[in-house]
Amino acid sequence: MERKGLIIVLSGFSGAGKGTIMKHLLKKHPGEYHLSISATTRGKRQGEEEGREYFFKTREEFDAMIAAGELLEYATFNGNSYGTPRSYVEKLVNEGKDVLLEIEIQGALQVKKLYPEALLLFVTPPSANDLKERLVGRGTETADVIAQRLAISSQESQYMSGYDYLIINDQIEKSVEQVYAIISCEHFRTARNLDTIDMIQKDLKKFERR
Amino acid sequence: MERKGLIIVLSGFSGAGKGTIMKHLLKKHPGEYHLSISATTRGKRQGEEEGREYFFKTREEFDAMIAAGELLEYATFNGNSYGTPRSYVEKLVNEGKDVLLEIEIQGALQVKKLYPEALLLFVTPPSANDLKERLVGRGTETADVIAQRLAISSQESQYMSGYDYLIINDQIEKSVEQVYAIISCEHFRTARNLDTIDMIQKDLKKFERR
Repeated sequence: MERKGLIIVLSGFSGAGKGTIMKHLLKKHPGEYHLSISATTRGKRQGEEEGREYFFKTREEFDAMIAAGELLEYATFNGNSYGTPRSYVEKLVNEGKDVLLEIEIQGALQVKKLYPEALLLFVTPPSANDLKERLVGRGTETADVIAQRLAISSQESQYMSGYDYLIINDQIEKSVEQVYAIISCEHFRTARNLDTIDMIQKDLKKFERR
Repeated sequence: MERKGLIIVLSGFSGAGKGTIMKHLLKKHPGEYHLSISATTRGKRQGEEEGREYFFKTREEFDAMIAAGELLEYATFNGNSYGTPRSYVEKLVNEGKDVLLEIEIQGALQVKKLYPEALLLFVTPPSANDLKERLVGRGTETADVIAQRLAISSQESQYMSGYDYLIINDQIEKSVEQVYAIISCEHFRTARNLDTIDMIQKDLKKFERR
């Protein structure tokens, strides 16, 4: 049976641990998922390779991609733009591969609009206080930056119910296995198996004609 | 966090193996699921106990239950009526328990209408020919009965896409684990965690007011 690939979007509050979940997921289940590679206008850093970390684009090239509808979603942070190339993702999905996208909430909702069948997962700590503690615990941001991130999280939280699944990231290993199980199970949804259903229906028809 | 129970409906073609899946699921994960007990007008058989195999009812009592809306679904086979008592299922679900219903397709669709959040699983062999072989292989039915069952399966197959998940029952152990995983994962759907989302949203609000 031909299996269609899934577009899987992982989002979550800053500090929720989505990057860590993603890393462990890819490490624990090598070859099972493909990571979407973003296009970006930001300069290449030492050790980065074209097509591995990013597809590096000039501002003009990036804007042309937007104009041509070649980006599934895009956003700008600190003056640098980042976007998900449509052709790359569609190629993988058509080959039956599950593609992981780690993107912001606005981008995720753009993807869901284009692909209602995309699977949207939202990662959150168990509580708002846990989120604050994790940001403080990192020790890398000033109190101001943390306050700003929490305020952004509060605004972002309004979109949580637009996601398909909620991952309450209490223990990283548990969360990784939950994400893995959710993706596996989603492949069994009837809506993702209409070809199989059609085949069985047609095959059964012959038993009606007796 | 308070967890709400799920209503899980398992249906499938006659001979697809849904009864076997159910039995293995309950045996392999004892205490995790509750089996819905049907009301029936059929007479009690030796060894059966009121409230264990069935709730035994007279025709008048059964009809009164229908009239009072006390059955989630009901159907009649060979002159005997069978139905799912609403109060029993709702009590379990409100206690946070997952309730399993093994019912026919028409009944399943009745349940989905009453509870759109119910989880509908459809069990099928990999192909129409596999279905035929299993019915023949049992050696318990005449060719006529088998032909009739297959014709019914063909009609039933029109409703497959009304189910949430498709279980292609190729190996029983694999199917049991699939059903188990699907039920576990469904508990993470945002639509089933609106209370948690609401709590996080309210908690995060306090970080906005600085």
